[in-house]
Amino acid sequence: MAKASLATKKRVPSVTPSNGMAPRRLKEIARLIGGDLVGNGNTLITGICGIKEAKPGDLTFIANSKYLHLLQTTKASAVITSPDVKAAPKPIIQTENPSLAFAKLAATLLDSGIQKHPEGVSPKAVLGKRVRLGVGVAIQPFVVIEDDVTIGDRTVVYAHSYIGRRVRIGNDCLIYPNVSIREKVEIGHRVIIHSGSVIGSDGFGFATVKGVHHKIPQVGTVVIEDDVEIGANVTIDRARFEKTVIGKGTKIDNLVQIAHNVVTGSNCIIVAQSGISGSTTLGNHVVLAGQSGVVGHITIGDNVMVGAQAGVSKSIPPNTAVWGYPAKPLAKAKRLNAALQRLPELHKAIDSLRKRLEELEQNTDARK
Amino acid sequence: MAKASLATKKRVPSVTPSNGMAPRRLKEIARLIGGDLVGNGNTLITGICGIKEAKPGDLTFIANSKYLHLLQTTKASAVITSPDVKAAPKPIIQTENPSLAFAKLAATLLDSGIQKHPEGVSPKAVLGKRVRLGVGVAIQPFVVIEDDVTIGDRTVVYAHSYIGRRVRIGNDCLIYPNVSIREKVEIGHRVIIHSGSVIGSDGFGFATVKGVHHKIPQVGTVVIEDDVEIGANVTIDRARFEKTVIGKGTKIDNLVQIAHNVVTGSNCIIVAQSGISGSTTLGNHVVLAGQSGVVGHITIGDNVMVGAQAGVSKSIPPNTAVWGYPAKPLAKAKRLNAALQRLPELHKAIDSLRKRLEELEQNTDARK
Amino acid sequence: MAKASLATKKRVPSVTPSNGMAPRRLKEIARLIGGDLVGNGNTLITGICGIKEAKPGDLTFIANSKYLHLLQTTKASAVITSPDVKAAPKPIIQTENPSLAFAKLAATLLDSGIQKHPEGVSPKAVLGKRVRLGVGVAIQPFVVIEDDVTIGDRTVVYAHSYIGRRVRIGNDCLIYPNVSIREKVEIGHRVIIHSGSVIGSDGFGFATVKGVHHKIPQVGTVVIEDDVEIGANVTIDRARFEKTVIGKGTKIDNLVQIAHNVVTGSNCIIVAQSGISGSTTLGNHVVLAGQSGVVGHITIGDNVMVGAQAGVSKSIPPNTAVWGYPAKPLAKAKRLNAALQRLPELHKAIDSLRKRLEELEQNTDARK
Repeated sequence: MAKASLATKKRVPSVTPSNGMAPRRLKEIARLIGGDLVGNGNTLITGICGIKEAKPGDLTFIANSKYLHLLQTTKASAVITSPDVKAAPKPIIQTENPSLAFAKLAATLLDSGIQKHPEGVSPKAVLGKRVRLGVGVAIQPFVVIEDDVTIGDRTVVYAHSYIGRRVRIGNDCLIYPNVSIREKVEIGHRVIIHSGSVIGSDGFGFATVKGVHHKIPQVGTVVIEDDVEIGANVTIDRARFEKTVIGKGTKIDNLVQIAHNVVTGSNCIIVAQSGISGSTTLGNHVVLAGQSGVVGHITIGDNVMVGAQAGVSKSIPPNTAVWGYPAKPLAKAKRLNAALQRLPELHKAIDSLRKRLEELEQNTDARK
Repeated sequence: MAKASLATKKRVPSVTPSNGMAPRRLKEIARLIGGDLVGNGNTLITGICGIKEAKPGDLTFIANSKYLHLLQTTKASAVITSPDVKAAPKPIIQTENPSLAFAKLAATLLDSGIQKHPEGVSPKAVLGKRVRLGVGVAIQPFVVIEDDVTIGDRTVVYAHSYIGRRVRIGNDCLIYPNVSIREKVEIGHRVIIHSGSVIGSDGFGFATVKGVHHKIPQVGTVVIEDDVEIGANVTIDRARFEKTVIGKGTKIDNLVQIAHNVVTGSNCIIVAQSGISGSTTLGNHVVLAGQSGVVGHITIGDNVMVGAQAGVSKSIPPNTAVWGYPAKPLAKAKRLNAALQRLPELHKAIDSLRKRLEELEQNTDARK
Repeated sequence: MAKASLATKKRVPSVTPSNGMAPRRLKEIARLIGGDLVGNGNTLITGICGIKEAKPGDLTFIANSKYLHLLQTTKASAVITSPDVKAAPKPIIQTENPSLAFAKLAATLLDSGIQKHPEGVSPKAVLGKRVRLGVGVAIQPFVVIEDDVTIGDRTVVYAHSYIGRRVRIGNDCLIYPNVSIREKVEIGHRVIIHSGSVIGSDGFGFATVKGVHHKIPQVGTVVIEDDVEIGANVTIDRARFEKTVIGKGTKIDNLVQIAHNVVTGSNCIIVAQSGISGSTTLGNHVVLAGQSGVVGHITIGDNVMVGAQAGVSKSIPPNTAVWGYPAKPLAKAKRLNAALQRLPELHKAIDSLRKRLEELEQNTDARK
């Protein structure tokens, strides 16, 4: 235990953001992402960064045409753009999806030390009977794995995570610290679960007799399909019977609640603090924006978009955007909202009409 | 560390839902739940399941008359129903509360291995001084129990849970993995706390002087009465003084926030992601639907029902249903909502009235 | 493992709230807080408590003039008040900020054992390479600290907390049980993080190509400045690049979501279950009330107050209070809400106008 000359004796200084990498020529990078180089391919790139924060030496990108004007002002040495951008005041690499290209670059080029995961199985973890571990599995200290668990190749389980009996986890998964996975849950390949999330807690089900709530056993499970990502402090309840399902490629943000027997399709986006009540089914490519809620026992069609803080109380047909509470189709909701803004005028308009009407009535009476 | 022939090398297969049980005759089951058998009592039951997912051999149930039509189509071999159901295309057991009867059956009949809890006190747990454990207590590895804690008979504490100084926990409780219970908290009998929940964190209280917030010590505690169930990732803050109380038999869903000095009555239902602000009191049998919020320092009467996403800003008398934001009595809220839907028409109606009025005014002027 | 005569065999009794302290004369306490004594300075004080719950022997306080009437009924033996209170039926101590004075007293006088924190570094914690610990650091069992971490003097890390690679934590911090702090996060001095919170989880960012969401690496970090308090089960995501920042003295309640690249000013108050979307900037002294939400990429000015459950969809200038969904300036929102309450009348008013108009029209027609 050191003491004396600790840096922390002073105010903790802000670190230089560690987005640095081994220097590369721009032409090498263009080859790497299969993009078209416009400008000086010998430009030396020493880091990658967002367009506003970029410094000389950095490579950045523009994914959205509304940020095109930043091309004129960014301090970056080069920019990845869509093929629409024909010219720029600095070298560019044109590619179909700048955001994706940039994401891949970041994963490839950045100091790999930053994202280094642990290796090996710690002797300070506790493994039950008949636990089967694939090749290259990493398990940190203080992990508890109960009996009859199977974990696939190269999966990493961080400290303090708990994996219940008969759980099955696929290959190349990342389970961050302090995750709880209850008995019998099944997890596919390449799944990421962030810290504090709870998978397979009991569904919220009670039989109420004379005002007293009796617990209904929740004996189903949860199935997380391949390529799902689950944020921090998310809760996904096990089914009463059968299974709660998170479909392939669905991405769940932090603090989301998924109740028992919910089934989501593939590639949904479920934003932070939204919640889905019991037995509701989501189609594919559904988007739930932040803090939205969906009642139980309904069906949300493919490609539905639910607005932020919206409350969905009925099933929604595919390809619909809804908004507000209770949620309505977007055009209708906007019309209502516009009408609502004019509501105080409406009261005034009616008062004015009433006065004019009274005048007319008096005139008419007077003439009778 | 195994490798070679792991099942996980292939796609993780979906398990057969393990709702199986040792086969029993239907008449035995009718006796077990004290129900009236209508039809063939020798029908062999090999599993139990929800009515939509049931397969031949399964016993299922209907709790709600709106699902009665499923009696015609379910693949189950027998159904538990209310006494109202006189006949059916397959054997039935009539009983007053099918949902409760079924819940008890599930707990009794299902492979008990599924819900098997750990046994014994792990030598890898850390117990402080003067910790008193009842008979049959189970404590998993890496649990930390501080000094002067008392835990009742048959209570189970899962891995990575933390129990602070002077905490008292009753008999037959279940504390799932990764739960944090802070100092001095008192927990009754038969309480269930799901993973990731935090009981007794500091209340959110500050004295602000010239824009700087100074922490107000939170030296009270939390009392969780008997038969309470607390979902996953719930937060219940300790009182500033005295105690935050969760009343007997109250059930709390996932991701709920209970602020300092809140007192709930008995048998409340607090659904996922709802929140109660500081010093508010709930009567008995109050229901807060999902994502609802209640301001601080108010009183919610017995049997109040608060709708989903509602925001309660004032005290509510007993036996009232409220809805919307700010929350209003249900009938009024519905009337407002209906009027709101017709708001765009209203704008049109006024425009039309105005035109007709102008015409009249011109006619009248013309005649003057 | 004890058994027999456990107190838990009986119903867990309610403890006497432990707000007791070594007895002191009121005049000593007046000196301690630098207040003006009015009444008998020899009054013996044996505990401190809130004004409603106080018993004889207790000292209490009144911070808000609306509770002044409680001066007549409280059972407390003495009361701390503002200088405005000139007389009272019992001894008082006048001081500028009774709440703050009381908070300081509570911290000073109460049985220090109640808030005693652990001491020393447990041999059951796992510390990586090049971990540097300041003087008087306490680390509980089962903590995991990765390589290259620096922790300042007197900081306490409770059980099951995880501290990732290259994290820096300042002096006098409190990290409660089951906290997850991911790699490279920087934490200032006197920061409190309650149980279950996750600092530095990946931001929620994907590049979608043909309906499939590809993860965008989140290689930035999180900076928590001095004197910040973070509630239980909060989530604060790391930046895509650069850093997410929680400004000096900001206080965050339970279950709050802070997305990647958010920057808050100093001394903000972010109440339970509210959420801030990616890349939004908050000024100083901003208040977000409970369950409110703020969209991404906007700027909230200094001293803005966002009402409970409000949904902020646009940037807000400084010194503005907003409310509702979408959030509007408070006066406008109240006007709208008042108009909304009168909406059903409005429908009736229009029906009445229409009838009167029709009558007039018929009269007019009749005369044509």
